[in-house]
Amino acid sequence: MSSDFGKNLKVSVFGQSHSAAIGAVVDGLPAGYAVDTAQLQAFADRRRAKDGLSTARREEDRIEIVSGLFEGKTCGAPLALFIKNGDVRSSDYAEIDKRPRPSHADYTSYAKYGWRDYRGGGHFSGRLTAALCAAGGVAKQILENFGVFVGAHALQIGKVKDAAFDPVRVRREDFVYPTDFPALSAEAAERMKAEILSAKSECDSVGGVVECAVIDLPAGLGEPMFDGVENRFAANLFGIPAVKGVEFGSGFAGAALRGSENNDAFYWDNGAVKTKTNNAGGVNGGIANGMPVVFRAAFKPTASIFRPQDTVDLEKEENCSLLIRGRHDPCIVVRAVPVVEAVACLTALDLLLGAKKDALNAK
Amino acid sequence: MSSDFGKNLKVSVFGQSHSAAIGAVVDGLPAGYAVDTAQLQAFADRRRAKDGLSTARREEDRIEIVSGLFEGKTCGAPLALFIKNGDVRSSDYAEIDKRPRPSHADYTSYAKYGWRDYRGGGHFSGRLTAALCAAGGVAKQILENFGVFVGAHALQIGKVKDAAFDPVRVRREDFVYPTDFPALSAEAAERMKAEILSAKSECDSVGGVVECAVIDLPAGLGEPMFDGVENRFAANLFGIPAVKGVEFGSGFAGAALRGSENNDAFYWDNGAVKTKTNNAGGVNGGIANGMPVVFRAAFKPTASIFRPQDTVDLEKEENCSLLIRGRHDPCIVVRAVPVVEAVACLTALDLLLGAKKDALNAK
Amino acid sequence: MSSDFGKNLKVSVFGQSHSAAIGAVVDGLPAGYAVDTAQLQAFADRRRAKDGLSTARREEDRIEIVSGLFEGKTCGAPLALFIKNGDVRSSDYAEIDKRPRPSHADYTSYAKYGWRDYRGGGHFSGRLTAALCAAGGVAKQILENFGVFVGAHALQIGKVKDAAFDPVRVRREDFVYPTDFPALSAEAAERMKAEILSAKSECDSVGGVVECAVIDLPAGLGEPMFDGVENRFAANLFGIPAVKGVEFGSGFAGAALRGSENNDAFYWDNGAVKTKTNNAGGVNGGIANGMPVVFRAAFKPTASIFRPQDTVDLEKEENCSLLIRGRHDPCIVVRAVPVVEAVACLTALDLLLGAKKDALNAK
Amino acid sequence: MSSDFGKNLKVSVFGQSHSAAIGAVVDGLPAGYAVDTAQLQAFADRRRAKDGLSTARREEDRIEIVSGLFEGKTCGAPLALFIKNGDVRSSDYAEIDKRPRPSHADYTSYAKYGWRDYRGGGHFSGRLTAALCAAGGVAKQILENFGVFVGAHALQIGKVKDAAFDPVRVRREDFVYPTDFPALSAEAAERMKAEILSAKSECDSVGGVVECAVIDLPAGLGEPMFDGVENRFAANLFGIPAVKGVEFGSGFAGAALRGSENNDAFYWDNGAVKTKTNNAGGVNGGIANGMPVVFRAAFKPTASIFRPQDTVDLEKEENCSLLIRGRHDPCIVVRAVPVVEAVACLTALDLLLGAKKDALNAK
Repeated sequence: MSSDFGKNLKVSVFGQSHSAAIGAVVDGLPAGYAVDTAQLQAFADRRRAKDGLSTARREEDRIEIVSGLFEGKTCGAPLALFIKNGDVRSSDYAEIDKRPRPSHADYTSYAKYGWRDYRGGGHFSGRLTAALCAAGGVAKQILENFGVFVGAHALQIGKVKDAAFDPVRVRREDFVYPTDFPALSAEAAERMKAEILSAKSECDSVGGVVECAVIDLPAGLGEPMFDGVENRFAANLFGIPAVKGVEFGSGFAGAALRGSENNDAFYWDNGAVKTKTNNAGGVNGGIANGMPVVFRAAFKPTASIFRPQDTVDLEKEENCSLLIRGRHDPCIVVRAVPVVEAVACLTALDLLLGAKKDALNAK
Repeated sequence: MSSDFGKNLKVSVFGQSHSAAIGAVVDGLPAGYAVDTAQLQAFADRRRAKDGLSTARREEDRIEIVSGLFEGKTCGAPLALFIKNGDVRSSDYAEIDKRPRPSHADYTSYAKYGWRDYRGGGHFSGRLTAALCAAGGVAKQILENFGVFVGAHALQIGKVKDAAFDPVRVRREDFVYPTDFPALSAEAAERMKAEILSAKSECDSVGGVVECAVIDLPAGLGEPMFDGVENRFAANLFGIPAVKGVEFGSGFAGAALRGSENNDAFYWDNGAVKTKTNNAGGVNGGIANGMPVVFRAAFKPTASIFRPQDTVDLEKEENCSLLIRGRHDPCIVVRAVPVVEAVACLTALDLLLGAKKDALNAK
Repeated sequence: MSSDFGKNLKVSVFGQSHSAAIGAVVDGLPAGYAVDTAQLQAFADRRRAKDGLSTARREEDRIEIVSGLFEGKTCGAPLALFIKNGDVRSSDYAEIDKRPRPSHADYTSYAKYGWRDYRGGGHFSGRLTAALCAAGGVAKQILENFGVFVGAHALQIGKVKDAAFDPVRVRREDFVYPTDFPALSAEAAERMKAEILSAKSECDSVGGVVECAVIDLPAGLGEPMFDGVENRFAANLFGIPAVKGVEFGSGFAGAALRGSENNDAFYWDNGAVKTKTNNAGGVNGGIANGMPVVFRAAFKPTASIFRPQDTVDLEKEENCSLLIRGRHDPCIVVRAVPVVEAVACLTALDLLLGAKKDALNAK
Repeated sequence: MSSDFGKNLKVSVFGQSHSAAIGAVVDGLPAGYAVDTAQLQAFADRRRAKDGLSTARREEDRIEIVSGLFEGKTCGAPLALFIKNGDVRSSDYAEIDKRPRPSHADYTSYAKYGWRDYRGGGHFSGRLTAALCAAGGVAKQILENFGVFVGAHALQIGKVKDAAFDPVRVRREDFVYPTDFPALSAEAAERMKAEILSAKSECDSVGGVVECAVIDLPAGLGEPMFDGVENRFAANLFGIPAVKGVEFGSGFAGAALRGSENNDAFYWDNGAVKTKTNNAGGVNGGIANGMPVVFRAAFKPTASIFRPQDTVDLEKEENCSLLIRGRHDPCIVVRAVPVVEAVACLTALDLLLGAKKDALNAK
């Protein structure tokens, strides 16, 4: 496996859906920054199951910082984060043994490792994103010291779309959701909830799109050609289970535009160079241009649905049918919003460290 | 800079638009494989300028293999590929000094390095993709020995779309284009050419989408979570200038689907496990499932257009207008098709080389 | 920090001398191998403090496997190992604040991070080697499945030397120590113990040399020029605190030899190519030649001695004297023997996992 | 192969003894620094063959900078360096086919790749060190801008030893050799030359030790535990053919010392913290402490000797004798001195870039 990423900030994720614990080791944090554990827990809690919309599995998900702090501040040592696995029912999974669930990693895990940990996806479980939130929540706090803010929202749930934020003028205030649902408008939140409940009532699931902005990332970050801002964000975002597409700025829509429509004109704004539009999503030639880095990640619908599905029996080598049981979200996009933020924070901090490193240690 | 990529197969790209030469060093090729230089040149020539549709810059782009072969076969030593830069007119670029071209890397290069090589984009030039084609062309030949084939086509040019290939049954024969244009149908080729010429006649440019299939990549390749097939392909594809989005399988469209529509049911097919649909694009949980790996890359319209554009004077710190001169493609998508193939070949071979370690898993 | 290493097998070490726990995440273990926890604990216990010869700090050092196994076997998921920190007295360290201990990492830690975790060395503590032993102990068990064995012994303690093993014929049986001291002969063990106790009685410390053999590592492993067997072993061995030199085969002594004395003649031995001598330490051109990989690591004397030492007060910017208190080993070499084995096992397994790609070389 | 190294400064070496050219791509150089090509050539020329002491092979070794400069200064683009291979006689090597030369990489190359490029060692040839000198010579010039100087000398040739420099007070002036031989004293130079000629006259070879100092590397550089100064220097130094041992500061001799003898006491020196001795070789806990980084690299005697040697015939699977022909240095240590400097410069610059990166771009 390669459950680690990062160049200057290295994140190593561990755990399985049904192991004793999950967690992450974050190596390379700049030293001297306070970590507010209550704020960290609050960030991670945004990922927790929501009434009616999510799996019934109840996870306390209490984050324990095992090492890496001294007197409450980062000290240069790797930060080890730990989340005990609580409410675990392995018996729910007995039936799926040898019959891979469609569009899950069961079959590919079998092809790679032989049939191993089939309980809830093992290391492929969406549960691992709790560890990402813990690590990303720390990065988010440290980024505050450098004026960098990351916000995200559910842009689309199934066929329901919300308005995108303004990619030129997006500010952190835009990400104060009016409801308990991570949508920018209360009206969209209602429609999105209805879309999810509709799918749920049909024993089905829906996908969606998360849109994210990294605000005030300094111009000049990123290395061309293969270690640029887009390469790094994309590589890390595809590490979130169910992400199947990533685009920056005008992205796929930009492919249909003329250059005269898509180009971002420069102008001086109070001594700083800015662009009038932001179709580039804040990145030119792989390098941040100082405008908000704007990207969208497409999530496929939850693979676990409660309808009979065609699959194979790997032992008997015959076709068969499968009815998934257990507890699964009809739409993971809602809970994925803080996960996207977490991965974006880790990536942004990694980029920031690449540029400065020891100069960033708090004095 | 970080103009290198790969884990087991490492590619280091060098050169600038106006340096003496460009090229690549490919480290980690398996030993003992013949490299057919005529076939290599033919592959790279697919990227060359096309009459009417492309820049008037004439590049011979003769690939020279400087080292890495012994008696015509790879020998374990790094393969160094070299392409002399011929038809170079630096004078075309004199005017743009200090006035960054909108949506080019001029400003970000300035923010990162100070103002450096402004001639044709320097190392950010699309010309560097000739080096990628040289390296990728070698990978393509070696992949043949393992039965892996990579094909791509122009799926969309501006607002003109072609039909996608069948992601389940796509074969190498599908990529024999009926015309000299890299579209799957002659009819689409005509419409696409017209779209490009229309933009050109308006001193404008268009973007597009390249669709690609990696056929017969063995199931089990790729490492979760952050070193999977999607992470690697995406990271490398964003290294191609102008790529602003990458999606696998049903991608962004899949976000609007229900799980019951998007899930790929398994079945036995002559002793092999296959899926009836391929919305996953051949990847589950980051690992190849044996179906074609299918992805699309969105290209923004060429940033160089021959209309006055608003920009800034970095020296005088004032707003100004800029009219780009020189020779530029009204649409790079046509020439990008083999580049996407090249990067896909390098990525596929890297995965293939790395994942033999799975052979050590206990049975 | 960069407390991780490895290419195919990645080890990320965390913890501080006085954090809640220390441990390691091992990512990339081949799947399907049983881990015997009793045997693992027994291996790690070889590193524990020894009566009279070591620090009085009592560490239970119970290894807890938090994740990475399924039904007792590796399953592809990262293995997370945890060791709680028990007997911790931070008060012992109050006095050293702002006065760096000579030849410790206090000053360099200050130069890098500002003054941070001064308690027992923080993340620089030799205690972290317990985590290395846990990770390395797992690697040792997995290597058994491939017939690779790693053994080490104390070759030198202070001025007392033991005989080296035969680098050509060394076998695993050679590493059954006749006493509870990791020396190959009982006689040397006695002299070495006396050397340590002599230093201890003088409130001083001694260094030493650990010699190690990696037996039956397959020929062909290792990548030239900068990713060879020697590069990897050396890079990882210098990660063990107090290591100041690493040599392979005849090493520094070989520098004084003639080629006719140092060259290792080849011969056929039962269908296998072997060398009559092993001055190369099993490595030619960075690549394993199938003979035992033999190396020695030099350990400096423990920096903590119980005598007044000259140092500086970083706050007052004046010279001062320091008397170290607390519990420290007069010689760490004894406890370092399993640590060297652990790092060698991790390195050997990493090489083994990586080099299966050689199987792709055309025959 | 893995002929690349570095983290922030990446060096990719290519070429074979008998390929059209050898060279290196250096990726990540800070931008805006002038490269003096005459000075670069002069540095690389220090590696060239010396009358009587070296191989008779005549290499022009003219360094060609193919890309990476703009108006004579680094511009952020990778620097590609090329050296044409001139005086090449493949016929000298016809006889050794299938009979591996003792202590060369022939057999391990065979074990890894099958029998490939046997001409002069192929990619394993010491000739590749010319490429390292080219790359390192550029790094040396850039280091000057940051006040960092790297010097080396032949400390030992065979059994002849020179005095070491003072590890506390070593300055760049110490490295102005009094003769054309890279020894610190004319007297030692004479004795060393005699040792080489004596071996040569006996159709034999000798090894030796190169000692190196990196002066004024800033305190705080290096990452613990596995990415420290020692790990990096050692890993890279073992990439030089024939290096079999690396030690820092008191190294192996320090293993025999007491802590009270080996510890380096701190003191204030004009507002800077220094150590009275430098047994640590400038590194504590993997991090530079601001004192000279001092290390020694042991070189084995040249494997090519002109005496009959026992080896095997890999085809006939029988023992046989071999008499090496061609042109070979009786002692490579003399020519290795600038190579050690080159690798040390590249490593030092890589460390320096890791700490600062873009802040280092010349304004």
